[in-house]
Amino acid sequence: MKKRLIIDMDETIADSLSRQLEWYGRDASHDVTPDQLKGRHLHQFVTQEHAPMVRAYPHHQDFFHDLPLLEGAQDALLKLSETYDIYIASAAMEFPHSFAPKFDWLRRHFPFISPMRYIFCGDKSILKADYLIEDTPQHLEGFTGQGLLLTAPHNLNENRFRRINSWTEVLAILLPGDQSVPAR
Amino acid sequence: MKKRLIIDMDETIADSLSRQLEWYGRDASHDVTPDQLKGRHLHQFVTQEHAPMVRAYPHHQDFFHDLPLLEGAQDALLKLSETYDIYIASAAMEFPHSFAPKFDWLRRHFPFISPMRYIFCGDKSILKADYLIEDTPQHLEGFTGQGLLLTAPHNLNENRFRRINSWTEVLAILLPGDQSVPAR
Repeated sequence: MKKRLIIDMDETIADSLSRQLEWYGRDASHDVTPDQLKGRHLHQFVTQEHAPMVRAYPHHQDFFHDLPLLEGAQDALLKLSETYDIYIASAAMEFPHSFAPKFDWLRRHFPFISPMRYIFCGDKSILKADYLIEDTPQHLEGFTGQGLLLTAPHNLNENRFRRINSWTEVLAILLPGDQSVPAR
Repeated sequence: MKKRLIIDMDETIADSLSRQLEWYGRDASHDVTPDQLKGRHLHQFVTQEHAPMVRAYPHHQDFFHDLPLLEGAQDALLKLSETYDIYIASAAMEFPHSFAPKFDWLRRHFPFISPMRYIFCGDKSILKADYLIEDTPQHLEGFTGQGLLLTAPHNLNENRFRRINSWTEVLAILLPGDQSVPAR
């Protein structure tokens, strides 16, 4: 039996931060770059006055449409799918509008993963697998397999979990003998 | 820490069979009762000509709206929620139209369960809990906790799992010392 690998969506394979920064630039006429966030979410970085607006973005029904892919995610998952059973788990219950666009996005960008392996949930501690790749430390807390924290601007100060900085690094860890994976 | 209990939706707490029989009666002018099914799904009971029509019902966007509750489910879950952490897991990925109506239905009928504990998935073997209550034997196959098969017309011939015949019986098993639960 193949080992099981659960992979998060937002800021793990889908670049939801770009959408946040894009909308904030539009609404506040203030360009913020990921480098400026330094361990904070955008709503923690902006003024108190702007924070509620930023927090509301993912509740808007257009937020999750056509998000860009995170660099290297598509190729990495295709390669990993030869060795692992891949599940995609998104904490989508907080944003019920996101169900349809998330489903369509996964179908379009990851046609090699069956929808039977999509999971829309809230609390991920109910999931069981060998690995969980996540940008959100809270979801790694209750996980009983090996958690891998994918670096994102908001989690730079987190040090409780094994950190990975890119999808190339994920491949080097999870497919160590694969000659087609660039060495770190 | 409370024990965890995962509960399925269709034919476990939501009476999706009633909707199927209702639509089949409307489309085929032929009334079928649950008693006639005797170990079969409706699509296995009807003529070969009608089977594709019946199989298509849950793909229709109106199918999951306002499904009736299964008898005793609402009271039982309220009572169980005092002792267990309850999660609701539905194999909804097969029917993407069902996400919104299922979410709304759960909010309406089970307001005491947080949406953070809803799970829309496909393959349930990725879930980990102490108990799983299900009408579908396939979902109990890969479950590592205690599986409980809730009797439904389609599963009458299944004998691999501990069978429960009603929500009253579930309470007698899971809340054995509770004086407010009627004895079997």
